[in-house]
Amino acid sequence: MSGSPPVAHGGDLDAARALFPQAPGPWVDLSTGINPVPYPCPPLEASAFRRLPSASDLAALNAAAARAYGVADPTGIVAAPGTQILIETLPRLWPRARVAVVGPTYAEHEAAWGRAGHSVFPAADLDAAADVVVVVNPNNPDGRNWPAATLLACAERLAMRGGLLVVDEAFADLEAVESLGGRRRPGIVVLRSFGKTYGLAGIRLGFALAEPALAARLGEALGPWAVSGPALAIGRAALADEDWRRSAAAERGADAGRLDRMIVRAGGRLIGGTCLFRTAEFPDGPGLFTRLGEAGIYVRRFAAAPRRLRFGLPADRTEWCRLSRVLK
Amino acid sequence: MSGSPPVAHGGDLDAARALFPQAPGPWVDLSTGINPVPYPCPPLEASAFRRLPSASDLAALNAAAARAYGVADPTGIVAAPGTQILIETLPRLWPRARVAVVGPTYAEHEAAWGRAGHSVFPAADLDAAADVVVVVNPNNPDGRNWPAATLLACAERLAMRGGLLVVDEAFADLEAVESLGGRRRPGIVVLRSFGKTYGLAGIRLGFALAEPALAARLGEALGPWAVSGPALAIGRAALADEDWRRSAAAERGADAGRLDRMIVRAGGRLIGGTCLFRTAEFPDGPGLFTRLGEAGIYVRRFAAAPRRLRFGLPADRTEWCRLSRVLK
Repeated sequence: MSGSPPVAHGGDLDAARALFPQAPGPWVDLSTGINPVPYPCPPLEASAFRRLPSASDLAALNAAAARAYGVADPTGIVAAPGTQILIETLPRLWPRARVAVVGPTYAEHEAAWGRAGHSVFPAADLDAAADVVVVVNPNNPDGRNWPAATLLACAERLAMRGGLLVVDEAFADLEAVESLGGRRRPGIVVLRSFGKTYGLAGIRLGFALAEPALAARLGEALGPWAVSGPALAIGRAALADEDWRRSAAAERGADAGRLDRMIVRAGGRLIGGTCLFRTAEFPDGPGLFTRLGEAGIYVRRFAAAPRRLRFGLPADRTEWCRLSRVLK
Repeated sequence: MSGSPPVAHGGDLDAARALFPQAPGPWVDLSTGINPVPYPCPPLEASAFRRLPSASDLAALNAAAARAYGVADPTGIVAAPGTQILIETLPRLWPRARVAVVGPTYAEHEAAWGRAGHSVFPAADLDAAADVVVVVNPNNPDGRNWPAATLLACAERLAMRGGLLVVDEAFADLEAVESLGGRRRPGIVVLRSFGKTYGLAGIRLGFALAEPALAARLGEALGPWAVSGPALAIGRAALADEDWRRSAAAERGADAGRLDRMIVRAGGRLIGGTCLFRTAEFPDGPGLFTRLGEAGIYVRRFAAAPRRLRFGLPADRTEWCRLSRVLK
């Protein structure tokens, strides 16, 4: 149940510094899919830090999440301190199962179901013979996505034998993908991340959307005050701000196009992505990773696919220029 | 595994407002044991909100916690978004057991072990015939406490048959009780709360101190980024500030003495408490609860002991005056 090595992640600049101690600072961190242009946080009241979050604070957050995610009724929305803890908790609530993780994808799904004692295997698509199917839509790192009808057919097939479809929509907010968030029914759990879209990964906020009985069990496992006061206040404001979300989708979409052009110019073959990250194959992936690192730019590499690199978006003009100097 | 009613807690002013809709505002919330004079938060960098907390952020927090809690080696310290989620998670990692909860005490312990499918029973003291013993030291709400030698003897007895002693030291920071935090050994888990002592319950921060194997399993269940960036930064600064902690113990101790005198003057018989809350019995507990509520002062009552009320500390002169007008 324990002892497996930790999963490698982007966003750990400690690792970048250790790999490239001579790199010029400040580091340009393109190793995550976190929006580099964050939502402008509202000023926080002191009480958000001081008092225990109340039931009405949580209800207000969940109501905003319901509107943002197209869910008719907030019952069945579970707010958590980041999606990661939901990925970890869900397998511990589920009876021993054969679990297919459609991938390659975000590695914590396979790791978490494995840690909880399930029999996990990677699958190429949704038709795997399994009790539980996990799919990331759009997928990280390749941007592959599935229409709602295909996912619903899979969920129906699984539900007939008491199974579960887990749809991780971590990167769906700014994309044109069809969300399953509004399709509340037994046998479907949808996960939504807050920090990536809003560029506020530090506040730790994520959601599960599930049928009420499973949502109640997830909520119990997290306890009554799992989400911090600052996350409740910021999340509520940001999720209600449709205009910001629309602008962010347009602006980050334009950034992604610009990044694609740089990647292609540098000899990369685009695999796909979302408007917050782009994945490509390079004739010499490890060499480019090193050249970027030596220039103080940290991107995501993949042990199982060394020619592949994933690029998050530069934050500003200076970062774009520094990237452009290497990708030429 | 589910369906039990939620545990009643202090700190929910929504409930106070519903009970006493005519009460004058602002509410004086004395229903918790949260320090009403919070630690002065350092200014937070934007990056605390924006980027994913790094492994070195967490290591720095854990090092500060180790010093504050008298632990020689930070290995085995697990930081969590509040102690509540540790109370909830620990029983889900432990094999089916007979669990004695020494009480009456904080109700979430019994509820959490019960939800995870264990056989839980209340016990009057540490000598209960059980595999797991849970004790809150000093106890909430009555302030009862146990010397380290007594607790260690209990832990040894339990460890001989693979059992566990859980010592919840939620209110130990400002008290003279003997902590078991430094006694890392199989069969002991110590829980420490941050928000109560530092008056920052909204940031959600708590710790488990355990032998490394169990700590690793708790850490896995929470995942790599369970604690928010703001909590990491604030927690690190506050836990390193011994002077503040010493002053807080003296000042809140003086407040507790003042509160005791008011309670006795109002006909209360003191049961005990810590310097952050005082518990007393009154000839007409429900009547006093109502008089306080009608005056906009919310205290903690106990369904199983209606004559008993628990008072947190007023925050300032105005709150002390309002309380004094009812307790006369």
